[in-house]
Amino acid sequence: MDEAADRTLPARNGRAARVTIHDVARASEVSIATASKALSGQGRMAVATRERVKEVAKALSFRPNAIARALLKQRSFTIGLLTDDTYGRFTLPVMAGISEALVDRGVSVFLCSVERDSAVGQSHVDAMLEKQVDGIIASGKRLDRRLSVDLSVVDVPVVYAYCEGPEGSIGFVSDDRAGACLAVERLMALGRRRIAHVTGPADFAVVPQRARGFAEALARAGLRPFTEHPMVGDWSEAWGFAAAERLLADPAGRPDAVFCGNDQIARGLIDALTLRGVAVPGDIAVVGFDNWEIFAAATRPPLTTVDMNLKDLGRHAGLTLLDLVEGRPVPPGVRALPCRLVVRRSCG
Amino acid sequence: MDEAADRTLPARNGRAARVTIHDVARASEVSIATASKALSGQGRMAVATRERVKEVAKALSFRPNAIARALLKQRSFTIGLLTDDTYGRFTLPVMAGISEALVDRGVSVFLCSVERDSAVGQSHVDAMLEKQVDGIIASGKRLDRRLSVDLSVVDVPVVYAYCEGPEGSIGFVSDDRAGACLAVERLMALGRRRIAHVTGPADFAVVPQRARGFAEALARAGLRPFTEHPMVGDWSEAWGFAAAERLLADPAGRPDAVFCGNDQIARGLIDALTLRGVAVPGDIAVVGFDNWEIFAAATRPPLTTVDMNLKDLGRHAGLTLLDLVEGRPVPPGVRALPCRLVVRRSCG
Repeated sequence: MDEAADRTLPARNGRAARVTIHDVARASEVSIATASKALSGQGRMAVATRERVKEVAKALSFRPNAIARALLKQRSFTIGLLTDDTYGRFTLPVMAGISEALVDRGVSVFLCSVERDSAVGQSHVDAMLEKQVDGIIASGKRLDRRLSVDLSVVDVPVVYAYCEGPEGSIGFVSDDRAGACLAVERLMALGRRRIAHVTGPADFAVVPQRARGFAEALARAGLRPFTEHPMVGDWSEAWGFAAAERLLADPAGRPDAVFCGNDQIARGLIDALTLRGVAVPGDIAVVGFDNWEIFAAATRPPLTTVDMNLKDLGRHAGLTLLDLVEGRPVPPGVRALPCRLVVRRSCG
Repeated sequence: MDEAADRTLPARNGRAARVTIHDVARASEVSIATASKALSGQGRMAVATRERVKEVAKALSFRPNAIARALLKQRSFTIGLLTDDTYGRFTLPVMAGISEALVDRGVSVFLCSVERDSAVGQSHVDAMLEKQVDGIIASGKRLDRRLSVDLSVVDVPVVYAYCEGPEGSIGFVSDDRAGACLAVERLMALGRRRIAHVTGPADFAVVPQRARGFAEALARAGLRPFTEHPMVGDWSEAWGFAAAERLLADPAGRPDAVFCGNDQIARGLIDALTLRGVAVPGDIAVVGFDNWEIFAAATRPPLTTVDMNLKDLGRHAGLTLLDLVEGRPVPPGVRALPCRLVVRRSCG
C-alpha cells in the first residue's frame, strides 16, 4: 500500500500534495467515476473493485472535501457523441480525437447514431440525457448540414464538430480554403503553372471554399486557373475518370497539374491518365483532398492530399466541451482549424 | 386526445387491448424510457415533455401494473456496443443492424471504442455499467480475436458479434466458408474452370475458412485449384496488383478466373490486368469478398463480391441480446450466418 501511495502522490511545489479522487482512481486502476461511486456506496460494480478502491483511499488517506463531493455527484464523466455519418468516414476520426483528449480526465465517449428520422433521433438524445451525460458533441458528414435533432434546448453543454450548429453555438470546422491553398502552393513550388481544379457538387459548402482557396493561391502568384471555372461533378472515381478524358481531349492543350476536390476523384483521374499513357506526376501532377488513407495510400502513385486533421478537430471539441462542463467560459462562434498537406508521390 | 387514443390502441383479438407503456410512448412520440421516467417523476427532460406524456397517459387511461413498473425501473432501454474496430469497416454495419432491430422496442445503442490498452478499455466498460445499460454487444474487426476487456464478469447479458467470445458465450459470425462456395459456384456456372485463389495473411481465421470453401466447391465439381495452394499476401491492392503480374508471367498458362480474399486485393488485381491489356471479365473473371461498396462499386468493371451481411448479423445479435435482457433462454454457442453474393460485372 505504501508503494501505491508513493506512486500516486505527486510532489507539487515541494509540499505534500493533497490527495484527490484522481489519485485514488489512478492507484486503484479504475475510472474517476468508478472511484467516486465506490467511495459513495453508489452504482454497480464488482464487490472486489469497490473494496479495492476503499482500501486504496484509506492507504492514501483520501478525504474528499465538500466541493469535490458535490462536483463528483453532479458529473458522470461520460459525454455523448451524436452523428448522422453512418459510414464513419468523418465521425470516427473525430471520435478518436475526443477520446484521446479526454481519456486522461477519466471521461468515456458514447457514440449514438441519429439519422434522418428526427423522432427516433430525439428519442436517442432523450436516452443520452437520461444517462446524465455531462455534455454532447454533435458531428456529421457535412459541415454545412445540421443534425435532424434539436440540441438547442438540452440542459447540458453542446459543442458542434464538423456539422452546422444553431446561431451562437460553439463549433469546430476545418479551414478548407486554406487547405486548398496549401495544395496549390505546393504544385506551384514544383514548377506547375497550368493547374486545373476538378471537384464535387457545388451545393456542398466545401466545394466553393476549396475552389476559392485554389483561385486565391493562383492569383497571388499571378496565374490563372487552367479552366475558367472549376470542373464540377459528383464525389466519385467515375467523375475523376471522365474528367481526365475531357481534359486530355481538349485541343487547347493539357494541364500540367490537377487539384482534385477529394481523393476518390483524384483516384479515378489518375487511373484514367495512367491507362492513356500519361505519366503521373511526370506529365501531370495530382493532389487530392481528405487523406482517406485507404484510397490515398493505395493509389498508383500514392496520392499527395490535404488532410482535414479531423482527429485534432475532435481533440479541440472534446477539450472545449470539458471547459464548458467544468464551468469555464468559452466564447461562442465557429473555429476553423488548419488542414495539413500530406505529401506522397503524385505531386512530383 | 381521442385521436391519439384511436391511433395507439391496437385491437388485439377483437378485445379492447390493455394500454401499455409502449402505447403511451408512441402516442407521446418519446422513447419508452422517457415515458417511464416522465410518469414516475424521475430523470431529466423538458417540462413540456413530461407534461405531454402525463396528458397522453391520462387520455389513454394508462394504469401500469406492478410487474410493468418493476420491469421498467430495472431497465434502461439502452445497450452498449463495444468495439476495437476504429476504422468502423465492420462495426458500423453491425451497429446499424442492431439499431434497426431495436429502435421499435425503444432501445438506444451507445458505441464505445475500446482499444488495445485494457485498463482504459475496462474503465469505459465500467462507465457503461454505471450507466446501467441493459446489456452489451462486443464487436471487432476480426472474428478470431477477443476484445482487450474481460466481459465474462459483468452482471448484464453479453452477446458477441464479429469477434471472439469466451467459452460458452453467445456469438454471431459470418459463414465465410459457405460464402466462398457461392463465389466459386457462380464462376463455374459461367463456364470458368481454371480458378485461382489470391488471398490475405494465413493467420487470419477467415483465410483458411474462405480457402476451404473455395477448394470444396471446386472438388464437388471435380475440378482442381489453378495453383496448388492459395496465393497469400496482405490485404492490400498492392498485393492484388503483384499477384496479377505473377499469374500472367506463369509459362504454364493463365487462369480464366480469380477468387480474391477481399475487395482490395481484387481491385489491385483487376487494375493490373487492365493495364496489361487483359480483359476483365472477358479473359479473366474476378470475384472479391466483403462488398465494401466504396471499393466494389468503383472498380472498373464493378466488382462481383461476397457480402458478409454484417447488418443482418447485427440484427440477430441485437434481438438475441433483447431475449436475454427480457429473461428468455438462449442456448450458448456461436451461430454462423449466411453470406450472399452481390453480382456486378467483373464475373461476366
